[in-house]
Amino acid sequence: MTRDGTLGVAVIGTGRMGSDHVRRIDEVISDARVAAVVDIDGERAKAAARRVDGCAAYTDAAAAMADDGVDAVLIASPGPAHEAALLEAFARDLPVLCEKPLTPDAASALRVVRAEARLGHRRAQVGFMRRYDARFRQLKAVLDAGVLGRPLMLHCVHRNVATGPGFTSTMTISDSVVHEIDATRWLLGQEIIAVTVLRPTPSAVAPEGLSDPQLVLFETAGGAVVDVEIFVNCGFGYQVRCEAVGEHGTARAGDDDGLYVNAAGRWGGEIPQDYVVRFADAYDREVQAWVDATRRGEVTGPSAWDGYAAAAVCEAGVCAQATGERTTVTLAPRPALYGG
Amino acid sequence: MTRDGTLGVAVIGTGRMGSDHVRRIDEVISDARVAAVVDIDGERAKAAARRVDGCAAYTDAAAAMADDGVDAVLIASPGPAHEAALLEAFARDLPVLCEKPLTPDAASALRVVRAEARLGHRRAQVGFMRRYDARFRQLKAVLDAGVLGRPLMLHCVHRNVATGPGFTSTMTISDSVVHEIDATRWLLGQEIIAVTVLRPTPSAVAPEGLSDPQLVLFETAGGAVVDVEIFVNCGFGYQVRCEAVGEHGTARAGDDDGLYVNAAGRWGGEIPQDYVVRFADAYDREVQAWVDATRRGEVTGPSAWDGYAAAAVCEAGVCAQATGERTTVTLAPRPALYGG
Amino acid sequence: MTRDGTLGVAVIGTGRMGSDHVRRIDEVISDARVAAVVDIDGERAKAAARRVDGCAAYTDAAAAMADDGVDAVLIASPGPAHEAALLEAFARDLPVLCEKPLTPDAASALRVVRAEARLGHRRAQVGFMRRYDARFRQLKAVLDAGVLGRPLMLHCVHRNVATGPGFTSTMTISDSVVHEIDATRWLLGQEIIAVTVLRPTPSAVAPEGLSDPQLVLFETAGGAVVDVEIFVNCGFGYQVRCEAVGEHGTARAGDDDGLYVNAAGRWGGEIPQDYVVRFADAYDREVQAWVDATRRGEVTGPSAWDGYAAAAVCEAGVCAQATGERTTVTLAPRPALYGG
Amino acid sequence: MTRDGTLGVAVIGTGRMGSDHVRRIDEVISDARVAAVVDIDGERAKAAARRVDGCAAYTDAAAAMADDGVDAVLIASPGPAHEAALLEAFARDLPVLCEKPLTPDAASALRVVRAEARLGHRRAQVGFMRRYDARFRQLKAVLDAGVLGRPLMLHCVHRNVATGPGFTSTMTISDSVVHEIDATRWLLGQEIIAVTVLRPTPSAVAPEGLSDPQLVLFETAGGAVVDVEIFVNCGFGYQVRCEAVGEHGTARAGDDDGLYVNAAGRWGGEIPQDYVVRFADAYDREVQAWVDATRRGEVTGPSAWDGYAAAAVCEAGVCAQATGERTTVTLAPRPALYGG
Repeated sequence: MTRDGTLGVAVIGTGRMGSDHVRRIDEVISDARVAAVVDIDGERAKAAARRVDGCAAYTDAAAAMADDGVDAVLIASPGPAHEAALLEAFARDLPVLCEKPLTPDAASALRVVRAEARLGHRRAQVGFMRRYDARFRQLKAVLDAGVLGRPLMLHCVHRNVATGPGFTSTMTISDSVVHEIDATRWLLGQEIIAVTVLRPTPSAVAPEGLSDPQLVLFETAGGAVVDVEIFVNCGFGYQVRCEAVGEHGTARAGDDDGLYVNAAGRWGGEIPQDYVVRFADAYDREVQAWVDATRRGEVTGPSAWDGYAAAAVCEAGVCAQATGERTTVTLAPRPALYGG
Repeated sequence: MTRDGTLGVAVIGTGRMGSDHVRRIDEVISDARVAAVVDIDGERAKAAARRVDGCAAYTDAAAAMADDGVDAVLIASPGPAHEAALLEAFARDLPVLCEKPLTPDAASALRVVRAEARLGHRRAQVGFMRRYDARFRQLKAVLDAGVLGRPLMLHCVHRNVATGPGFTSTMTISDSVVHEIDATRWLLGQEIIAVTVLRPTPSAVAPEGLSDPQLVLFETAGGAVVDVEIFVNCGFGYQVRCEAVGEHGTARAGDDDGLYVNAAGRWGGEIPQDYVVRFADAYDREVQAWVDATRRGEVTGPSAWDGYAAAAVCEAGVCAQATGERTTVTLAPRPALYGG
Repeated sequence: MTRDGTLGVAVIGTGRMGSDHVRRIDEVISDARVAAVVDIDGERAKAAARRVDGCAAYTDAAAAMADDGVDAVLIASPGPAHEAALLEAFARDLPVLCEKPLTPDAASALRVVRAEARLGHRRAQVGFMRRYDARFRQLKAVLDAGVLGRPLMLHCVHRNVATGPGFTSTMTISDSVVHEIDATRWLLGQEIIAVTVLRPTPSAVAPEGLSDPQLVLFETAGGAVVDVEIFVNCGFGYQVRCEAVGEHGTARAGDDDGLYVNAAGRWGGEIPQDYVVRFADAYDREVQAWVDATRRGEVTGPSAWDGYAAAAVCEAGVCAQATGERTTVTLAPRPALYGG
Repeated sequence: MTRDGTLGVAVIGTGRMGSDHVRRIDEVISDARVAAVVDIDGERAKAAARRVDGCAAYTDAAAAMADDGVDAVLIASPGPAHEAALLEAFARDLPVLCEKPLTPDAASALRVVRAEARLGHRRAQVGFMRRYDARFRQLKAVLDAGVLGRPLMLHCVHRNVATGPGFTSTMTISDSVVHEIDATRWLLGQEIIAVTVLRPTPSAVAPEGLSDPQLVLFETAGGAVVDVEIFVNCGFGYQVRCEAVGEHGTARAGDDDGLYVNAAGRWGGEIPQDYVVRFADAYDREVQAWVDATRRGEVTGPSAWDGYAAAAVCEAGVCAQATGERTTVTLAPRPALYGG
């Protein structure tokens, strides 16, 4: 909390997500500034740094973390680089906001969990931004208030307009459904114990070889059942929906917000084409909440354990997808640091 | 109630509305049959009669009413022909369902009212079909149940795709807003005492010389205020909407029923293009209710008085439209037959 | 088609459904009359007959079918009595509308199918009334028109307020989900080839021993996947919803029709409490369509084969429910009469 | 733009609105800090100042504006104090965000306009926060893009749960409808030239003597017609709605956002009870936009002219309310500074 009381953040990675976070911290977020940017491509790092007053450019994450002006770290580099950056931040006892996934697999995620547990206090928050979406927060509040009674089911829908080149069936789980995995764990407060995947004949619009759409099923430790339609080439828009079914009623987040238009024989409205539009406010709230908590010396968001548990469910999901069988999820014991 | 217990109906007029009623009675309505059709064009009458088993063709309404098989009369001829047909039916004490308007002006409507009052019992029902629409009936039920407290305002919208040739600004009142006039009187159970019309610069899409859209305002005897958007060349669909504002809440009929579709970047659904589609069920219910009541020897629907009152408000509306001034409505004393 | 051209119907069974059909044919349906009612309880039969002009009372279905005034048969007796009544009607070559289920199990349903196949022409229609619901028909039309491309998934919800005494987990499949089984086969035009059932920890509101809610999954011959939430003690209302997901978009029938009300801090509307309210129009249309087709000498609705196929899927569903395993459906060869 | 590059703001008035802005600038807004607070009640000023690091307390607005740390002024004191504070800020050439109303009447507002015109450049922004609401901005964008063609009508609804003590019929115009006045001018880009007010028999729930609800009508220079339901004791929630009717379609902002809940026989959702909830984001965006523009040396929001024009329409509205007559609006010539 140096210089004028604002939080100096090192942003690691200046790709799409990293650049967006640089802009966000610079323009939107209160009480924080971009103190440093890191990219293995030095020119890209310098270009990003130039856009922000008093921002330093680095090609090495550890060097950036050693910068005097850096009070906290935001990791937005590719997944395989996360583990090293997290461990470095732990070594320096710096607070970290790490974009999802925590790491690319459960084994490495567990190493991060254990490193933080050895540290003895939480330092890492994982970027599951749905927890900061206004609608999802209302849904969580309704569930927690017990208005609907005990939750029995969740019906989830996750649709993207289209996938880019190189997107695989495995990534539908680890890149897309991972959000529903976290949302399920968060909304219900229960671990996922089994995953099943049903694969309809793929849409002719999906790239050759991609299983799309799919129906993914979770069973939770508390006996709830969750179904997820994941459809990453739906063509018509970006849509995220979640209906919780409880003993006394249901509540649904998602769908049809926005301006209501009558024109050309149709009533209705526009569907956003993109998660950046749909979740713009959620990203803003997420980073602001992290900055605020960090300045108070607290860590409040999704934990490294949440990142590890999501990774473990993803691995079971990928296995379930390949075999067509119900696949159980095995989690390591939960360290006391995370309420184990 | 001759022949096999079904009601023999003479349908007068075989234009769009008359033909539709012939089809309806023949195919949809229970316990009624088309006994006779009347058209001043004899060939058209014969053509219509040929489509129905045992149906006679006439060019003269009185002759049709004298037919042995005729138990009741449905008037769907042009407005100027209504008065004579109604008086003939009264002379024969035959039940009548008369398409709106009862007659083209208040003076002739009042003659009909007085003729029926002299008869001493109700014989005529006017075809204000909104009273038979499921949504409007729900709205009426909510108002009558007092759920919203005393009604204070109605916000009405009445939109047509486009007008045919010869449609005039006067007709926007007498042909279109007449439905809101009746709906207001029926929903609130109050007479309309004043009308004001505001005329925005017309839409470029409206035919030259037609004032379209307009905002029509009613004040009622009970102190309620009603606004009506009438827009007969809205281009995008046929829409009828009514929101009642009461002391404790509001209720709205209309809008966005039907299938909910996500496609091509939009959520929403289809708007019907036509009152025949939107009010198909209402017409069916109206005629069935008339047949059922008639067979029980009752008259239950909108009365000749309702037809007269609507005509009187229309005349005030046309005057208000021409002058731009608030125009009061003067009604003749209400005969005892109609609860006066 | 005796007496005055109307169809004389013998209604077999005068319980809740049978009485409702007697009222419907008597009051709502055009061109049909209740010629006879049958109930093994003679007093009940007489009481039902007394309410309709010229209606005879019987305790024996075969005797009623022999009545001169009877042109067609509507079976609304308990399921175990259906087979005998159907075979009797076939023997007399009488058209039949048989309430669902066709018969209580696949073996008996297959006997009915084979009997009708031997007859050489269709005589039986099964009472899957959703095919006559305006919303489901719109959904079918959109799918058939190819607007959404090939259908990939259906998301279905089927909720009842509460179950009566004696309702079992098996009945959630055979009495409730049977509607989604028929809707799936009809909407997609494909047979169901496998069923899986997931059972969350039951709602505390459900009767002891009843698995409620459940998630039922179908796989179809064309590679589509269908999920059904069946929740027969949801407490808050009767709700039926179906969203079809196609290659180019989705379309949803169900949900939130009706009057829109603002009151007491909430926007929204009322949920019907009962299928009789929700599907009143569908029952009317179903029976009218059957009467109309029958008078034309045709059979157009869901066939005995549809009844058999639904029974076979139900049996697989009950097995899947008991074992927790994916269970395949085996159908007998489809007779040529049904397009086999 | 002293101290660490953030904008030092003096907040004048520490009542409900002022305190909320102090919290907002302190916690939410990026690149600004509360440098000083002013309240004629010195204890209240000190209490407010204590909650913010490095914030000075004043009882005199001019003294606060002379504070070295003050770069800009936010006026949230009662309306009668606005003129003096605005003129003082102009004298010091300080940027001002002035809560609505600019001043309590058109004459004083015109003095402010002329003072700023003499200054030769814009310094003041008026707090019409609807221009910063996401939905209203979408509506404006759709209108500006010409999607609906030329706008012909606006249908507006403005409902509050209940009024506090001392709220008068005049205030329904000057405190409540003033928002629709600004929204109309902004959305249509046209001046309002006439006002008419219709007053239904008041709701029994409204305080004795208060005309509530009312229907307020505007006519604009471009020939559009606007109706506004103002209902400040509607009892059920805070609701703001605006439907624009254009030549090719309509678009509606408002209504039924938020979580969709099925429970207890009803579908729907919660209505916010309060403008603070409904427009929380709009206030945040408004102040952030003001801070950002100010730091760039620009003034971008609603101008003093907008404040004056709204005041002039309010005066005509109050007159129309009293007389029941259509009342024309007369505006002074628009200074060149405001595009006159």
